[in-house]
Amino acid sequence: MGNCSQGCQHYFCRPKNTNVRVSLPAVCFVWQVAMIILFGVFVRYDKEADAHWSETKKEENITSNVENDFYYRYPSFQDVHVMIFVGFGFLMTFLKRYSFGGVGFNFLIAAFGLQWALLMQGWFHSLDPVTGYIYIGIENLINADFCVAGCLIAFGALLGKVSPVQLMVMTLFGVTLYAVEEYIILNLLHAIDAGGSMVIHIFGAYYGLTISWVLYRPNLHQSKRLHGSVYHSDVFAMIGTLFLWMYWPSFNSAICYHGDGQHRAAINTYLSLAASVLTTFAISSLSAKRGKLDMVHIQNATLAGGVAMGTAAEFMIQPYGALIVGFCCGIVSTFGYLVLTPFMEKCLKIQDTCGIHNLHAMPGVLGGVVGAITAATASNAVYSPEGLINTFDFQGNFATRSVTTQGAYQAAAMCVALIFGIGGGALVGLILRFPIWGDAEDDNCFDDEVYWEVSGLNFKD
Amino acid sequence: MGNCSQGCQHYFCRPKNTNVRVSLPAVCFVWQVAMIILFGVFVRYDKEADAHWSETKKEENITSNVENDFYYRYPSFQDVHVMIFVGFGFLMTFLKRYSFGGVGFNFLIAAFGLQWALLMQGWFHSLDPVTGYIYIGIENLINADFCVAGCLIAFGALLGKVSPVQLMVMTLFGVTLYAVEEYIILNLLHAIDAGGSMVIHIFGAYYGLTISWVLYRPNLHQSKRLHGSVYHSDVFAMIGTLFLWMYWPSFNSAICYHGDGQHRAAINTYLSLAASVLTTFAISSLSAKRGKLDMVHIQNATLAGGVAMGTAAEFMIQPYGALIVGFCCGIVSTFGYLVLTPFMEKCLKIQDTCGIHNLHAMPGVLGGVVGAITAATASNAVYSPEGLINTFDFQGNFATRSVTTQGAYQAAAMCVALIFGIGGGALVGLILRFPIWGDAEDDNCFDDEVYWEVSGLNFKD
Amino acid sequence: MGNCSQGCQHYFCRPKNTNVRVSLPAVCFVWQVAMIILFGVFVRYDKEADAHWSETKKEENITSNVENDFYYRYPSFQDVHVMIFVGFGFLMTFLKRYSFGGVGFNFLIAAFGLQWALLMQGWFHSLDPVTGYIYIGIENLINADFCVAGCLIAFGALLGKVSPVQLMVMTLFGVTLYAVEEYIILNLLHAIDAGGSMVIHIFGAYYGLTISWVLYRPNLHQSKRLHGSVYHSDVFAMIGTLFLWMYWPSFNSAICYHGDGQHRAAINTYLSLAASVLTTFAISSLSAKRGKLDMVHIQNATLAGGVAMGTAAEFMIQPYGALIVGFCCGIVSTFGYLVLTPFMEKCLKIQDTCGIHNLHAMPGVLGGVVGAITAATASNAVYSPEGLINTFDFQGNFATRSVTTQGAYQAAAMCVALIFGIGGGALVGLILRFPIWGDAEDDNCFDDEVYWEVSGLNFKD
Repeated sequence: MGNCSQGCQHYFCRPKNTNVRVSLPAVCFVWQVAMIILFGVFVRYDKEADAHWSETKKEENITSNVENDFYYRYPSFQDVHVMIFVGFGFLMTFLKRYSFGGVGFNFLIAAFGLQWALLMQGWFHSLDPVTGYIYIGIENLINADFCVAGCLIAFGALLGKVSPVQLMVMTLFGVTLYAVEEYIILNLLHAIDAGGSMVIHIFGAYYGLTISWVLYRPNLHQSKRLHGSVYHSDVFAMIGTLFLWMYWPSFNSAICYHGDGQHRAAINTYLSLAASVLTTFAISSLSAKRGKLDMVHIQNATLAGGVAMGTAAEFMIQPYGALIVGFCCGIVSTFGYLVLTPFMEKCLKIQDTCGIHNLHAMPGVLGGVVGAITAATASNAVYSPEGLINTFDFQGNFATRSVTTQGAYQAAAMCVALIFGIGGGALVGLILRFPIWGDAEDDNCFDDEVYWEVSGLNFKD
Repeated sequence: MGNCSQGCQHYFCRPKNTNVRVSLPAVCFVWQVAMIILFGVFVRYDKEADAHWSETKKEENITSNVENDFYYRYPSFQDVHVMIFVGFGFLMTFLKRYSFGGVGFNFLIAAFGLQWALLMQGWFHSLDPVTGYIYIGIENLINADFCVAGCLIAFGALLGKVSPVQLMVMTLFGVTLYAVEEYIILNLLHAIDAGGSMVIHIFGAYYGLTISWVLYRPNLHQSKRLHGSVYHSDVFAMIGTLFLWMYWPSFNSAICYHGDGQHRAAINTYLSLAASVLTTFAISSLSAKRGKLDMVHIQNATLAGGVAMGTAAEFMIQPYGALIVGFCCGIVSTFGYLVLTPFMEKCLKIQDTCGIHNLHAMPGVLGGVVGAITAATASNAVYSPEGLINTFDFQGNFATRSVTTQGAYQAAAMCVALIFGIGGGALVGLILRFPIWGDAEDDNCFDDEVYWEVSGLNFKD
Repeated sequence: MGNCSQGCQHYFCRPKNTNVRVSLPAVCFVWQVAMIILFGVFVRYDKEADAHWSETKKEENITSNVENDFYYRYPSFQDVHVMIFVGFGFLMTFLKRYSFGGVGFNFLIAAFGLQWALLMQGWFHSLDPVTGYIYIGIENLINADFCVAGCLIAFGALLGKVSPVQLMVMTLFGVTLYAVEEYIILNLLHAIDAGGSMVIHIFGAYYGLTISWVLYRPNLHQSKRLHGSVYHSDVFAMIGTLFLWMYWPSFNSAICYHGDGQHRAAINTYLSLAASVLTTFAISSLSAKRGKLDMVHIQNATLAGGVAMGTAAEFMIQPYGALIVGFCCGIVSTFGYLVLTPFMEKCLKIQDTCGIHNLHAMPGVLGGVVGAITAATASNAVYSPEGLINTFDFQGNFATRSVTTQGAYQAAAMCVALIFGIGGGALVGLILRFPIWGDAEDDNCFDDEVYWEVSGLNFKD
């Protein structure tokens, strides 16, 4: 029962009660009511979504409705939205008897998380000090979805081992930590991270892994019979994989600056992802008897190229640079599944259901490093003076920052993400160990019947 | 056999013949040929889709192609299109042996319905009295998809109990009724209903429920063995749920006016849907032994927030207002599944396969009420004078209408939708009772083998 | 063993070895490394994706970022991307035990093909003779996806009968042939083919069919037990069908000229597809005992309307014209499945797993013919003088071409596509017959266990 001293075992090791009939509705109601009150006090439409827009247009000399940010970002927003709910949701249906939990709890915590993220990110980024209001528009919705993505990554490590109430608590704290970490990285350090290699992936992955470490289940092998896939659950998971893969260019370009920034981010991500597919297939085949491919690799490591292009998405990394990043990620990520995941479970006592260390943590770190290097080597010749200012937002307080300094701050940002992930995960993991959250026994993990009415199962055990 | 006097039983109760080999092809061919002829006589491209567009641009001083309505609405159109075919289609795959019928018949009647809708709506809205032509563009395609949505909602109540020929007849009349009802509500009453809480959801739901009432099957319990889901059919249905949920902001904003209207509608719907997820999970858990969640609730009631934001989508309801709407809908809709559906089946003799009363009828009414109230309380301060005119289209004949009057007309519109739904449903239900349409016996419902070649079933009965 | 003389049987008929542990990784690594090198030497961002865009805007007097081609084409690009990976991928999951191979190999060859396509198409279309660079932007990404579509169509004929290494080889040559054929058709003949009825569908289908003919397996009946679907694999395939069907308007309009061109192409394709659904259901029902529908027809023939609108997508074919095209295609394609596929297998020794002759070849030819006729009959009255020039790109060297001549060149283009498909297929087929590629024995086809680690199968054989 967890990686802690034996002294606390007495308290923590009472027989488990998975009845969430009181706790789950209570948490849902209390938090939703809190959201309504806080939104009532703090949140209003921003000027582009407010009915005063026709006045704003006159004041700001905007001639066409098409200049409303909605038209620049809405298609990308919808793609990101699909990634959050169908992408992450179906990626987690791969277990033979935990598909309801995978897609259903993903739905629950994402729907809660995005509300809380609008508030937390709003307080840090969009609060008008005069009126005291947070003004939200389409970019806030995208950022809220991004923030939720961090928590869903963490969910990947915990899949099948925690109760929905624990997931709600994990999301509440995760979103809070994310908003602070994001503020430090983007505003104080002024690092660039449009697709969130650091802010989303490093943070989310280490947050989840640390929680998983604290919640270590020594007898998880008792659920071995359910800890795997069946034929059709692997096909369901491919729905998630493909929607993540296809829409990742939108993810990385969604909040880039208008024009060439969004355009370039989409191209880079498209190429990086394509390259990681080939190296994933190569390593997967190379590692198995008779060259047989493993669905777990195809479902996950093919996405590593998107994770690793998060930071440098809008940089002038050039098409071949993007291919190199994807090439490396596919290899690293697939090796992770082959070598690291079993090692971590056995030696480090980290049980990582979906292998988020391979899909998010390592490619995220790689992405952060690539971002730091490419930022430090940026030049006026490659970017044009105005392009350099646009890309790195060298304006206001940061007008005089050099690209080398920027590179150093990018590296620092990576450390911040790591610290928040590990520190936050340790804290939240301890909270989640209280025996009040309704999680299941070790021999009852990965089983939908604990939290769902399941009828008419159609597979052999 | 149905809720009618015993006198007509002799005629209506002959043994049933489910052979549709003549009737289905005949209906498909006749109606498709009719469409071609009518399109030949009536339908042409509108000026933004016609090759004369380069001349139009000069005449109307349009400087950029991006002002073509295509670029404002095409992304939303595609999202709506996905909702119609994948959203509604897969939502109806939840039955263990009726997945082909759910997604397949949905495909058939939507593909027919949208053609007929282009004509019917065209005659009412886009007919040029001079040339006698209907001019269609991207907005017509969206409206046709909307119109089809009404019939697909009605299909939800009938799922598994009717033949494809009956569905085609139901769609033919449904689209016709919809177009008239829509004309009365939007043009004569000048009510606002961008996302169709009233026009689409109230109409569609009561249309389907009334047909279901007329076609009451007293011995439907004989199909009990097939009237439920299996594990993987519930996962398939989640594909439908999630695509409906994710793209609902596009549905409600698709035909809003350009700029802040579309922007605000997307934000409101996004928030309302998020809130209804939490209350759905809460009530579902609260109502079951040991707090176990029910997939039927998660698949359906989570969407109620989108239905209820249909009318007020572009109003200045504020973010917290949208959350409150979603909060209430999730509760009402889930209670519907728990209490009302069994009650209606037992006492009112309404067999509602998908529970459209809970997902569309009640949230639709709630949405209509919210729309009427928020319209009646709109003010220049909140909307700005110009914003108020844009939002409620207080122009031409309606330039002098007050917001209070508008509220009253919104309420009247709700009654019109209700009357058309119930009245039309009664009429069409009677037509569908003729024993010529190839529907199945009571003990043969919910079974794909009646209308599909089914091989290699892979589940236990 | 194949349609060739008996003399070569000795060499080609050694017992087969399906171990791809060396060959598959080798091919993936070598080709990916080659891509990186070639991209390094040749590929850069185009001016709309380059950080110098802010300078470009000044030089070219572009006032708004929204004029960046990204905003005109990105939503369509994403839809096309979904068609390539989810559409084609899931369409090929219909076999009971080859779903991994269907969606997985589709993923692999598409991810490789798009990189090679960017290069090949770049050399022919986007190479700057001064700098020696290929400059890529969003339109190149769409064209690369299009090019890949041709190879995925060919994959449909070979599904279940070839090894992943053979597919990689097939894609390498397929993309190469495609780029040459496309250059001849679009640049030399100056034919119009925005949605690729000829360039993509005719070429891809005959390429695949010819390869299948060369690789004829006389004892394929030994895999009969696996050559069919089960209930849930048919539902998976419907995911592919519907995403192809819904996004086809984006496919055909993605690279049309801005404004009315894209708008009209979307409308035409939408209508054509709707009509082919009805005739497909009609013929499918008409042909079966008791009118039972066949899922194979619904999954495939409903798409024929999109294929056939490829060439004439942006022409002024009028809405009823589009309906007529769809009407015919649904009939022709469904008859193909009923009559031609068995005939071709028995008499012509062409084994066409997915029936691409019915879905792509015949509707493609029909589309080419429709395109030639409608081009030849175009007039200033219907198009307006400027519209005619825009639509057929009568500029530069082609400023004086008449519409009749254009019609003739359209017909010639069809022949070019056919010749490249058949000739290329014969050549590549011979290459693929070398016994080094790891394909399976005849009694082992359509089985995922040959190339995938498969656990926990949940269906009866």
